Amino acid sequence: MRKKMDLARLVLIGVRVYGRWAPSPEDLKRCAMIALFTDFGLAGPYTGQMKAVIAAMAPGASIIDLFADAPAGNPKASAYLLAAHAAWFPEKTVFLCVVDPGVGGARLPIVLEADGRLYVGPGNGLFELVRRRALTARTFEIEWRPERLSASFHGRDLFAPVAAMLARGEPPPGRLCDDSALRCADWPDDLPEIVYIDHYGNAMTGLRAVALAPDARLIAAGRMLERARTFGDRAQGEAFWYENSNGLGEIAVNSGRADRALGLKIGMPVEIVR
Amino acid sequence: MRKKMDLARLVLIGVRVYGRWAPSPEDLKRCAMIALFTDFGLAGPYTGQMKAVIAAMAPGASIIDLFADAPAGNPKASAYLLAAHAAWFPEKTVFLCVVDPGVGGARLPIVLEADGRLYVGPGNGLFELVRRRALTARTFEIEWRPERLSASFHGRDLFAPVAAMLARGEPPPGRLCDDSALRCADWPDDLPEIVYIDHYGNAMTGLRAVALAPDARLIAAGRMLERARTFGDRAQGEAFWYENSNGLGEIAVNSGRADRALGLKIGMPVEIVR
Amino acid sequence: MRKKMDLARLVLIGVRVYGRWAPSPEDLKRCAMIALFTDFGLAGPYTGQMKAVIAAMAPGASIIDLFADAPAGNPKASAYLLAAHAAWFPEKTVFLCVVDPGVGGARLPIVLEADGRLYVGPGNGLFELVRRRALTARTFEIEWRPERLSASFHGRDLFAPVAAMLARGEPPPGRLCDDSALRCADWPDDLPEIVYIDHYGNAMTGLRAVALAPDARLIAAGRMLERARTFGDRAQGEAFWYENSNGLGEIAVNSGRADRALGLKIGMPVEIVR
Repeated sequence: MRKKMDLARLVLIGVRVYGRWAPSPEDLKRCAMIALFTDFGLAGPYTGQMKAVIAAMAPGASIIDLFADAPAGNPKASAYLLAAHAAWFPEKTVFLCVVDPGVGGARLPIVLEADGRLYVGPGNGLFELVRRRALTARTFEIEWRPERLSASFHGRDLFAPVAAMLARGEPPPGRLCDDSALRCADWPDDLPEIVYIDHYGNAMTGLRAVALAPDARLIAAGRMLERARTFGDRAQGEAFWYENSNGLGEIAVNSGRADRALGLKIGMPVEIVR
Repeated sequence: MRKKMDLARLVLIGVRVYGRWAPSPEDLKRCAMIALFTDFGLAGPYTGQMKAVIAAMAPGASIIDLFADAPAGNPKASAYLLAAHAAWFPEKTVFLCVVDPGVGGARLPIVLEADGRLYVGPGNGLFELVRRRALTARTFEIEWRPERLSASFHGRDLFAPVAAMLARGEPPPGRLCDDSALRCADWPDDLPEIVYIDHYGNAMTGLRAVALAPDARLIAAGRMLERARTFGDRAQGEAFWYENSNGLGEIAVNSGRADRALGLKIGMPVEIVR
Repeated sequence: MRKKMDLARLVLIGVRVYGRWAPSPEDLKRCAMIALFTDFGLAGPYTGQMKAVIAAMAPGASIIDLFADAPAGNPKASAYLLAAHAAWFPEKTVFLCVVDPGVGGARLPIVLEADGRLYVGPGNGLFELVRRRALTARTFEIEWRPERLSASFHGRDLFAPVAAMLARGEPPPGRLCDDSALRCADWPDDLPEIVYIDHYGNAMTGLRAVALAPDARLIAAGRMLERARTFGDRAQGEAFWYENSNGLGEIAVNSGRADRALGLKIGMPVEIVR
């Protein structure tokens, strides 16, 4: 009899501890999520090697591929893309972010804690918009160093281990620092540029839709675009802009590819007309 | 002594509960598998955001990327591809399927239960062939709605949470419905078209090999193709068709790319000659 | 009181068993890592179907995508790429490797145990360099066969199940064999060729940097390249070679794409000049 009760209780506890069926906030905290945001591309060994580090150091963590194709070598455009997407994730999420053209150089490795989420990566402006929009934020300089640090892959050797530590609930392995020297005060609050083109050919801008007037129009590649609520509101082949599912102004063509139809590319400017 | 016994028993129970080494059918049921079938493409944040929802709501589930590049915006071709691949998966698998050009419009969100597997997605014909080939099937209209439903990303906001509920063993959050209005009676049982081209340039058709005569030949892009058992049966550079590992008729070239050699594209018709 | 203690102990045991926070070497052994090394490409159902097999048979294993785009149909170039990257992984890692142009033909399915790591795949030379560089190695012929073995997808039907068995700690399902007939004695210890081009356009060679003199220069596509420590050491747009994070000589251009700037392709020869 006793055996049976124990078993039932154990299963129950197991469920609570491992959070299989109904994760409580506590379970979620324990089973931390690590979101990857890099410009490594989808192919090649780099993302896999970072995941191997995390799997070994924080086996319970869920690893989510958010972006592997952030604007390559472009921390500024990436910063607007990251801020828009990170806001959707639950508290305690650890963002492992590597858009790091200066790897091996002097830029500081940092941890940003902002509104309950944690960001690990290079102090090159990549976290500027997350930081600027946060209600509460603290920046830590990462002082921990691995036994072996390659010159070209800090994502694997330095940032992934730190992300794993944070996912395990450990404090940032470094010291709280004044980040004023890292800030990019001259960057705008919203970036009037194309920052990402997706699989369907839709072009995300660095503009938050809430920051635009309801009747605002956008000009991109010489074309004036009106706002629509959704694709079905427009005729086939018509170009427009709309608020995408992550809150950004996005340029699209119903049943078509906006990138080809309008000739859009990452980095191209966008003008706001009221 | 007692402590030791407890520990051994606990480990044993742990193993049984979490199914690490030797998953019983019960373990497999518990540790549900969610297979993703979308046209989101490999890049971008969409697949990652759906996985984040599942990881939070059903942390024990294994998430499998089956297709991220199903025929884009083409539920019909996708339906034949899905039916061929789903049959290989174990019972209790949850298929989270998003080929949804009408997102934000009137199409019904549904759950199909067919031969013990579960399919979540838009009621736009995507499950027609799974439904038609099933021995037992029930369709549910999803009535549950999230607190926030974006206009353009029901995959993340509606279908992923429902898939997570099903993976946790919960019933479909909706009502059993008569699906006759959703059926596509005019679609053929096998689709004589190219429905997918893989990394090697092999072209999958929507034709099941078992539905073809043993000596059936296929004509594609004006070329008559004989059946082979495997690549090695043919001379280098020779084009042929064979039954692929998922039961579909597939057009290939030994040591070459059939798509380039024959000029094949998704949607191109295939003729059957006996 | 007793209840509380039990709970605390259980959590503790749970942590030890499932290794969530601080994996001991024992935990890591238990929670084996399976690294995938294939030429399947990123798209399509093949990798997903192999992962589904592993998830069902060894649910606790971490599955890492190392390469899905190894040189297609080229076991020789792949062998140098695999050996360079496998050395970075911890002991007990299981490498599931499928670069298998002869699938369905006569090549032997094997397991190689080398320096504590395990390699599953075709005996077509793919493991030659791992084998040659290992201090200790044993080769097993896989004798186990699944109930259903497709002619074209041994990765899913044969190799993935065996990888799962190894990840569960089971012995290789076959017999120890003399592998002398499988060896490729005429292949060099380092391959003076481009074996991989990454997302940034950097070109990996099959040459280990430690095997090259500190002042060695490389000639590729008619261009003489000097060694640099890191990208920042060179002027923007300048081409050079350096030791990459996995120990290979890699050709790169600071703030540019070496593949386009120099016209590099996989299989192109590289000459060493001292």
